[in-house]
This record gives sequence, structure tokens and C-alpha cells, in this order.
Amino acid sequence: MTWVLYLIIACGALSIAYGYLTRNAILAADAGTPKMQEIAAAIQEGAQAYLSRQYQAIGLVGVVIFIVLFFLLGLLPAIGFAIGAILSGVAGYIGMNVSVRANVRTAQAATKSLADGLSLAFKSGAITGLLVAGLALLGVTIYYWVLTTILGYDASSRQVIDALVALGFGASLISIFARLGGGIFTKGADVGGDLVGKVEAGIPEDDPRNPATIADNVGDNVGDCAGMAADLFETYVVTVVATMVLASIYFTGALTEPMMLYPLAIGATCVITSIIGTYFVRLGSSQSIMGALYKGVIVTGILSLIALWPVTAFLVGMDTSMTIGEVSFTGQSLYFCGVVGLVVTALIVVITEYYTSTKFRPVHEIAKASVTGHGTNVIQGLAVSLESTALPALVIMAGIIATYNLAGLFGIAIAVTTMLALAGMVVALDAFGPVTDNAGGIAEMAGLPENVRETTDALDAVGNTTKAVTKGYAIGSAGLGALVLFAAYTEDLKYFAANAAQYPYFEGVDPAFTLSNPYVVVGLFLGGLLPYLFGGIAMTAVGRAGSAIVEEVRRQFKEKPGIMKGEDRPDYGRAVDLLTKAAIKEMIVPSLLPVLSPVVFFFLINWIAGKSAAFSALGAMLLGVIVTGLFVAISMTAGGGAWDNAKKYIEDGNHGGKGSEAHKAAVTGDTVGDPYKDTAGPAVNPMIKITNIVALLLLAVLAHQ
Amino acid sequence: MTWVLYLIIACGALSIAYGYLTRNAILAADAGTPKMQEIAAAIQEGAQAYLSRQYQAIGLVGVVIFIVLFFLLGLLPAIGFAIGAILSGVAGYIGMNVSVRANVRTAQAATKSLADGLSLAFKSGAITGLLVAGLALLGVTIYYWVLTTILGYDASSRQVIDALVALGFGASLISIFARLGGGIFTKGADVGGDLVGKVEAGIPEDDPRNPATIADNVGDNVGDCAGMAADLFETYVVTVVATMVLASIYFTGALTEPMMLYPLAIGATCVITSIIGTYFVRLGSSQSIMGALYKGVIVTGILSLIALWPVTAFLVGMDTSMTIGEVSFTGQSLYFCGVVGLVVTALIVVITEYYTSTKFRPVHEIAKASVTGHGTNVIQGLAVSLESTALPALVIMAGIIATYNLAGLFGIAIAVTTMLALAGMVVALDAFGPVTDNAGGIAEMAGLPENVRETTDALDAVGNTTKAVTKGYAIGSAGLGALVLFAAYTEDLKYFAANAAQYPYFEGVDPAFTLSNPYVVVGLFLGGLLPYLFGGIAMTAVGRAGSAIVEEVRRQFKEKPGIMKGEDRPDYGRAVDLLTKAAIKEMIVPSLLPVLSPVVFFFLINWIAGKSAAFSALGAMLLGVIVTGLFVAISMTAGGGAWDNAKKYIEDGNHGGKGSEAHKAAVTGDTVGDPYKDTAGPAVNPMIKITNIVALLLLAVLAHQ
Repeated sequence: MTWVLYLIIACGALSIAYGYLTRNAILAADAGTPKMQEIAAAIQEGAQAYLSRQYQAIGLVGVVIFIVLFFLLGLLPAIGFAIGAILSGVAGYIGMNVSVRANVRTAQAATKSLADGLSLAFKSGAITGLLVAGLALLGVTIYYWVLTTILGYDASSRQVIDALVALGFGASLISIFARLGGGIFTKGADVGGDLVGKVEAGIPEDDPRNPATIADNVGDNVGDCAGMAADLFETYVVTVVATMVLASIYFTGALTEPMMLYPLAIGATCVITSIIGTYFVRLGSSQSIMGALYKGVIVTGILSLIALWPVTAFLVGMDTSMTIGEVSFTGQSLYFCGVVGLVVTALIVVITEYYTSTKFRPVHEIAKASVTGHGTNVIQGLAVSLESTALPALVIMAGIIATYNLAGLFGIAIAVTTMLALAGMVVALDAFGPVTDNAGGIAEMAGLPENVRETTDALDAVGNTTKAVTKGYAIGSAGLGALVLFAAYTEDLKYFAANAAQYPYFEGVDPAFTLSNPYVVVGLFLGGLLPYLFGGIAMTAVGRAGSAIVEEVRRQFKEKPGIMKGEDRPDYGRAVDLLTKAAIKEMIVPSLLPVLSPVVFFFLINWIAGKSAAFSALGAMLLGVIVTGLFVAISMTAGGGAWDNAKKYIEDGNHGGKGSEAHKAAVTGDTVGDPYKDTAGPAVNPMIKITNIVALLLLAVLAHQ
Repeated sequence: MTWVLYLIIACGALSIAYGYLTRNAILAADAGTPKMQEIAAAIQEGAQAYLSRQYQAIGLVGVVIFIVLFFLLGLLPAIGFAIGAILSGVAGYIGMNVSVRANVRTAQAATKSLADGLSLAFKSGAITGLLVAGLALLGVTIYYWVLTTILGYDASSRQVIDALVALGFGASLISIFARLGGGIFTKGADVGGDLVGKVEAGIPEDDPRNPATIADNVGDNVGDCAGMAADLFETYVVTVVATMVLASIYFTGALTEPMMLYPLAIGATCVITSIIGTYFVRLGSSQSIMGALYKGVIVTGILSLIALWPVTAFLVGMDTSMTIGEVSFTGQSLYFCGVVGLVVTALIVVITEYYTSTKFRPVHEIAKASVTGHGTNVIQGLAVSLESTALPALVIMAGIIATYNLAGLFGIAIAVTTMLALAGMVVALDAFGPVTDNAGGIAEMAGLPENVRETTDALDAVGNTTKAVTKGYAIGSAGLGALVLFAAYTEDLKYFAANAAQYPYFEGVDPAFTLSNPYVVVGLFLGGLLPYLFGGIAMTAVGRAGSAIVEEVRRQFKEKPGIMKGEDRPDYGRAVDLLTKAAIKEMIVPSLLPVLSPVVFFFLINWIAGKSAAFSALGAMLLGVIVTGLFVAISMTAGGGAWDNAKKYIEDGNHGGKGSEAHKAAVTGDTVGDPYKDTAGPAVNPMIKITNIVALLLLAVLAHQ
């Protein structure tokens, strides 16, 4: 089977090669006028400075955790942690690096045509997307190869499992910091800049006279690009690892190895189909941007559908029959679970488009409500955000039922893995957004003709939808995978309790996960609380950072009256600096909330009611955090996207257009939606994952005692 | 034991007598100038007209359900349903009736002193409060007496249980309609009136030139007063009924009857202590309104603490030992569970005050964020609303753990019962709010001196907090009682399954409520979805009603330019009429959502995966709806209160005071908070209850097949 591993590694390497070649193609494109390059350089510098400082701060936390893990669990898990953390950081860093070079080139390409602008921006997004999928696949596969082939550990041994789980933890830890830090930076700049620029001073977005404008564009790169990349990286890793853990538990004998490789093979297959898919993203005669993107997604989906059949047939065997608990199934059932995963992805994309695109009822209703004022705009936006959770939740529920009936819990795991195997393509859709956003900013600041801005705005509006899609997709996979993560926990727990002679801590542990157990209900509530508290803290942080920016900009306007007249240059660096400090300071506490909560909660309940109750409560907490987290995250990300596009819809000339009272109200809605969709909402996904993975690590640590 | 029943009935009757006498005292007070009386008459007329139409609409639904219940379950449950429905309506109707008479008298009393205004408004609230508690107690007790003493059914027979559950259903059904219909009416008026009056026309709140102003004041009475009364009525009834059902299941022999009477006795005791407590609400030398109200609450709490000891000792016996499942306990343990219920109530009151009062950090932060604009105000308000869920949830979790360890599931039930036994006092605090709000409106419209409005505003600000308190208390009781409602369902199900010979539908039913059952996870998600979807629909309804009002007012201003000059009289009646139609139309669909969801969901899962899976999924749904509902409801009600008071805080002269930019932003926040706190948020509580009680009824119906 080792050559299968090599093949998977080769597919992963291919994504790196794709990234390298595409990067060169982007760099070869025209970087525009010196003025544009000057602006781009400022953004680049700010993004690099922020990311270095952020990684330094996270690095400190990482070193501490590395040492703790080393002493608690040994070297291999500690190394796994380091691999996950470093690769997650690398994916974000490279993505940002490409993005800050593609932005100015996209602006320049947009001077020619919409198709050129789209092509360049999408290529940049595709690099980030395929690096995320490729690095995640490589990280897990190579470390698995080292553990099993080089070090010779049994594939289903605790050494391998603990090390892989720790790898997932490393990825999760970086991702929550990156999502939150980047989110606070980008939305602090956006909210503050909009308030003081658009609302107070009456200057347009991205006007060079606004001292916060470079910071705003830096934010797109460090938050929407690097933060998102780290998030999807961890989602991918955690899902694959959880599926591998389940495989190691459910299958014995000759089946263990192929079943552990199966999720990796799915990932490898979809890297290839995603690469092919990227070449199909091309603007048709209808000039529909979303249509162009859909082409790539559909090609990738169909090719995956076709390619996964032989992969499954070869690795698992279509007629191989397996049994988990009461459910019996064949390799073919697993293939169909993968199909369900693809269908769920497609439905989430379509539903999210419906709720956030400028073409449909929800956004139109928010735009219409803007006519009667700020208040009704926000009310309608909140209404849409609440409502937008229903259909995705129903899709996820249907997915759970279908895949469970096909192939039990492992079927759900395969569905989620297949869903995330498309990350390369889906992230590409997302990462193209900040590039076009930046391109618009550069066009505005460099004083390019009005029609360039119109082109980038059209791209940006689609970017708002695709950004919401990725977030819905990430959190949707968490919802569909809820039982998988929970099962990883309960199966681990069962294993330790069954081998209590070897793991004395688990002597007599017999947790009851039934809903009539009060500790289960308490666990559900505590889990349910986390996304709310976390969201509250994140929103406050953005508000605070935004207010600081408002004051800084007001100060600059006052001290240098020449700025508003265009005679004096604002000090862009100060705003970037201020936000860097604020974001890094504000990200620490909320990021540690999901890391520490499971541990504190476990020991508290253990102290009150003993080990069994504590394990029950902790398990329930893992589900509780998904039950509310799913709704909090979807409502925030879809609602925020809808607000943003309602503003764009008005700017397109509806309800009075730019400058009208309706537009002012829509700007307020957009401001509110900013931290909703780009800070609090998306950070819920890594938060859920980290809670789950900390619980798994806690089991491993207790087993080591 | 029959004389204990009579004593309980006597206590209930006492609350009616209290209401009657206090009403006379209010009517005897000075009703102010003819101008004030004319305005009050218009409000009265509008409120009566709306409530009649609302009850007619609900009556139609009620008659249909009465007939359905009669055919499915027989006469006694149908009658029970009617009793619950009618008494719930009566409580709301009388409350509204007193409130629309107390408002003008409070305005008049406020011309004398703050103490007089407070005294009158609080008396009016106390009538509603004690009627809610008294009628609920009387309804359950008298019907129980008829069933067991007159008709001679065994206290724990299905006849008695089904009839009582149907009574709870009747109360719940009215309450969801009343909460939602009233909520849409009041907030449609409020949002629409504010937008077009305060923001567009620049006239103050309650200005007589605003055609929506009478509708706004009507709304306070039909939404905040009648709607809230119906809500608390059902919360009380459902909790007491669920506790009685559990008692009938858990206790056998000589213990059955006293244990079924125990929750009623707790209710009776607290009616008396609440009546006494109302006499202690008096403004001290510090002029602290909240302090005055606290006095009444504290006296009621302490007296209840003292009185429940002998009641428990007599009815249960302090040393009587009982066993449920694995937990053994004594009568004394039950007493302490009651104490925990009181402590939970006290903590929720204090926490809600912290988050919504003008005195503390959360409101100050929203006010401060208003300085930088509409957007930051809303962001900070949402942050507070998310954050405000954490402490109440922790208190509820602690309450579950404490009471379960004291006396198992029945201990939790007794704690919730005791918590709700205080409804008389708590509702009094709440119902005083709309009276003072109306008094302020009347003072403004009648052109009373500025200091009268200041007095009523001070009362109103406290009213915002107490309104949030009641809602937190109602939903908190639902959270604490989640396991009780769930246990009523599972125990009923167990009973039917164990007696499958008699109830053939339940042959072979063996539901698994463990979290590793995918149908349980699906049930949790579907339950979790309901508060979101429901909230989204409710918010949309308010937005739509508000926009209709904006257009109507604009039309009137345009057609009669004399209105703004004060020369022409606006047509107040049209706004009231328009809202009446809108509210009644919009309340139907969302109200039926929680009624039909459990039924549809059950049969769908039954069709896919069989009965056991369907019963598991339905049970999980009951908990899912509480897990997200708790957070949705608390965040909306506390957040909305905080927004409202942030506006009041600015109007008190902070951050620039009335008319400043900060004030405008705060008005936006207040507008957003309106449907949050008075429509969507509070309606979640009856929604949770109705889902649970429909599930119980479904079991009864299936058992009847």
C-alpha cells in the first residue's frame, strides 16, 4: 500500500507545483502605473508587517503548547502539533503573499476587460485554494507515512492516532488566532474607515485622503485571505484526521490500512479535479461572473464524481462488505456517501447564493427596507440572517440521515471528507474576493477611470457571495461532521475504558450520553454558550478597534487640514500600526476560551459528580457547541453578506443609488454586517473544531497518566 | 386531602379579590384633564378593538383545535384545552383593561411626585401579575378537583394527565398568538412611528402630530401587557402541569396525591407572599425606583422561603424519604430545591439588571459606541446581546446540577415550580412598564409640563429593565425546566411502551436518546432551527408592519399639511386599523410553525426510519429547541433592553443628549432592539413550550389509536 501513499503525496505535490507555476504567471502580468505600484507596495508592506507580528505572537503561544504537549504526550504528538501549526501558517502566508501581488495586477487587468480582471483574480484565489488543500493533504499524509513506514508504528496504534490528532490541534490553534486576529484587523479598519470616511467626511470608500484606507486593504489580505486559508486548512486537516481515527477504530485486519488511506485518497483525487476545474472558470458571452465560477465548480464536481468511483473500487472494493454496529454496507455505499457530500456542497453553495446575491429576494428586501431608514435596514438584515439558517440546516440534516443509512457513522465521515476534498476549488472562489476588493481600492486610490471601479465592484459583489459560500461550507461541514467528531471522542473513550488495566485513569468510567442525563443537558448548554460568548467578545473587539480608528482618523484630519484638500499625505502607517496592536491584543483571550473551556469544564464536573458524569458532560458540550454554533455562524456569515450586497444593490442605482438616504442606511447595515460575517461568524468554525480536538487530546493526556 | 385543594383554591380566589379591590383603588384615582382623558379613551378604544379582533381570530383556530381534540382524545381533554385557552385570554384581557385605565391616572399622579406615579403604575402591574398567577393556579386546581373529586378519576390516571396536558396546550396556543400578534402590533407601531416621526419629521416621541402615536400606545397595552400576561400564564400552567405529570409517574401509593398537590401548594403559598410583597414596594429616601421594586421582590422571596418550610413539612414531610431512579431524597431536599429556584430567580433578576440598566457598563458601552455612529451602536448592541446570555446560562446550569443532586429530576421540577410561583410578583414588575410608557405618551400628547415626562421617563427606563427581567425569567425557567418537559415526554413514552398491550401503537418502540444516535442529532438540529426561523419570520413581520406605518404616516402628512403645523388632526384610527390587520395576518403562520413541526417531523422520520427513530428524534427536538431558544431569547430580550436604555441614557444628557448625532444612532439601536426584545425574543418562550406540549399530546393521540 506504500505506493498508494506515494501517489497521494505526488498529488499533493502537484498542487504545490500548480501554485508555483500560476504564481509566476501572475507575476508576469502588468503591474500597472507607478502610482498603483506604490499603493500596492504600501498594502504589501502593511500585510507582511501584520502577519509577521501575528505569527510571532501565536508562535509564543505555540512554543508553550509544544512544550506542554511534549511533557504530557511525548515527542511525536508535539512534532505533529508543530507540523499542523507551521503548515497552517505557511498556507496563510503564501496566500497573502500572492494576493498582495495579484491585487494591483487585477486592477490593471480590469482596465482592459471584465474577463481579464476575473481571470487574474481567480488565478490568485486558486493558488491559495490549492495550497490549502495540497499542504493539508501533504502534512497529514507525510506524517502518517513517517509514523507508519519509517518509524514502523501500527496504523491503528495510539502513537499514530495521538500524533495525528495533535497535528489537527496545531492547525486549529493557528486558525482560530488567524481568523480572529485577521478578522479584528480587517473589520476594525473597515468599520472605522467607513464611519469616519463615508459617513462623517462624506468621501467615497478607498479614497486616498482617508488615513485608514491602506489599513482597510491590508485587512482584506490578512483577514479574508490569510485568516480564511488557515481556517479551511484546519477544517480539512481535522476532518481527515477524525475520519482516519474512526477508520482505525472501526476496521480491523487487512481493512485497516486501506480504510485509513481512503480519506487521503479522496483528498488526492479532488486536488487533481480541482486543478482541472480551475481552467474552466472563464467568462461566457452572458458576462455572468457567478456563471463563470459555477463552471469551474461544476466541472470539478462532475470529475470528482467520476474519478472517485475507480478510486473507491480499487482501494476499498465496491462489493467489500463491512459492518459497524448495526449497519452493514459495501464499498459502493461509501462511494454514494461521497456523492451525498458533493450534493450537500452544491446545495449549500446554491442556498448561500440565494441569500446573499444581489439577484434575489433577501438582498432586495434589505435594500427596500433601507428606504425607511437605518433601523428597518438592520431589522430586515437580522431577519434575513436568522432565516438563512433554515435551509442549510435542513440540508445538513438530510445529509446525516442519508449517509448514516448508507454506511453508518463512517458514511457520514466519508461524506464530510469528500465535501472538504473540494476545498481547493471552494477556497479559490473565496480567495478571489479580497483580491478584487483590493483591486477596487487600488483603482480608487490611483484615480483610475470610473469604469475600472465598476468592473472591480461587479467582481467584488460576487466575492461577497462566494465569501459567504465558503463560510457556510466550512460550518456546514462541521454540522454534518458533528457526529464524526463526537464519535471520535466516544470511541476513544470506549477504547480507554475497555483497556482500563493499561489506562488506569479510566477505571470504572461508564459515561451515559442520553439526553435524560442532567450532565448531558448541562454540557449542551455550556457548549451552546460558547459561540454566543465568543461572538460577543469578537464583536466588542471589532467595535473597539473601529472606534480607535475613527479617533485616529479624526485626529489626523484635525492636525493636518491639508489631507482633506488632497494637499497633504495622510499617515497610513499609523492606522496599520494601531490596528496591528489592537488585533493581536484582542485575539488572545477569545482564542483561549475554546481551548480552556473543555478542560476546566471537565475537571469541574469531575470534582462535583465524578469521572463518568464529567465525560458525559464534556461529550455533550462538543455537540452543544455545534448545535448553536451552526446557527450562529450561518446567520452571521449569510446575513453579513446580504447586508453588504444590499448596499451594492443600491449603489447599482436602485432605491435612489449612491448618496441617497437609503444608501446611508445600507452603509450602516454593511458596517454591522462586517464583524458579523468576517470576524465573529467565521471564527465559530475553528472554535468548534478546537473544542472537539482539545477534548480528544484531553483523553490522550488522561490516558498517559 | 380535599381540604388542601380547597385551601389552594381559596388562595387563588384571594388573588382575584386582590385584583378587584386594587382595581377599584386605581379607578378612584384622579384621571386628569379632559384632554388626557380623551387621549386615554382613544388608546382604550384601540386596544379593546385590537384585542377583540385578535381573540376572534384565535377563537377560530381554537374552535377547530377543540373539535380535533374532541375527536382524537375525547371530551375531557377538549374541555381542558378550552379552560386553558379561555383563562389565558381572560388574564390578558383584564390586564389590558386595567392598564388602559391606569395609564392616564399614572400620568396625573406623576404630576404630583415620582412616588405617586410609581405607586399607581405598580398597583396596575400587580393586578395583572396576581391575576396571571391566580387564574393559572385556579384553572389547574379546579379542573384537577373536578377530575379527581367530582368525576372520581384516579389522580395518576391517563384521563387526568391528558386533560391537564390539554389545558396547558390551550394556554400555550393562546399565548403564542398573543405574544406574536401583540408583539407585531406594538413594534410595528413603535418602529414605524419612530422612523417617520423622530427621524424623518424630527418631532419627539409621542408627539400628537404623529398619526402613529395612538397606535404606539395601544401597542404597549396589547403587546407588552396582554401578550406578556398570556405568556406567563402559559409558562406557569405548563410548568405546574409537567411537575404534576412527573409526580403522578414517580410516586405511587399514598405519596401520589400529596406530591401532585405539592406544586399547587407552592403556587398558592407564593400568591399570598406576592400579595404581601406588593405592599412593600415604596420609594425610599434615595428615590431609587429599582430599589423600591427590589423591596417588594425581596420581601416576597424571604416570606416564600419561610412559608414553604411548613408547607413542605405538612404536605410531604421533611423526613419522608423517596427514591427516583438512582437518587434518594427527603422532603427537606425538595424544600431546598425550592430555595434553589428562588436563588435562580434572584440571580437572573440581578444579571438582567446589570445588562439592561442605565447604571452599568453594557448600556454605557452601547451609548459610547453611539458617538461614532449608527453602525457602531448596532455592533456594540449585538455584542452585548450575545454576551448577555453567558451568565444566565451558567446560573441555569448550576441550578440543574444543584437540584438534580438534591432530589433528581423531581427536584428540578420543584425548583422550576417555585421559580414560577413568584410569577405574581415578577409579572407585576413587568406590567408596570407599559403603564408608565403610556403615561409618558399621554403626558407628551396632553402637553403636560416637562418634569412630568421626566418622571414617567425615569419610570419607563426602569420598566425596560423589568421587562427584560420577566423575559429572562420566563425563558430561564424554560431552560431550567428543559429536562422536566423532556422527562414528561420520555416517561409518558416509557409508560405507553411498557403497556403496549393496551396501547398497540407503541408495540416494540424502544427509542435511544443517546447523542450517538444520528436521529437524536438531527432532532437537536431541527429543534435548534425553530427559534431561528421563527425569529426571522417575526422580525420580517415587524419590519413589514413598520414600513406600512411609515407609508401611511407619510401619506397623511402629505394629504393634510396642517397636521405638522398642529392645525389639523391626524387620523389615528387608520394606523390602529392598519396594524390590527397586519398583526393578525402575520401572526398565523409563525404561530403554527411550532404546533405543526413536531407532528410533521415525527411522521417524516417514522416514514424514513421507523417509530423508535422517530420518537428519539422528536425527543431530541424538544431539547434542541431549548438549547438554541434559550440563547436566542435571552440575547434578544436583554440586548433589546440595553439598546432602549442606551438611548434613555443619552437622553439623560450623556454624550451630547437629545438631538445629538449620538442620540440619532441610539434611536436606530432602539428601533432594532424593539422587535428583538418585544416580538421575536419573548415569543420564543411560548414557542418552546408549545413544541413540548404538542409532543406530549401527540403521544396521547397515538396511544388513543
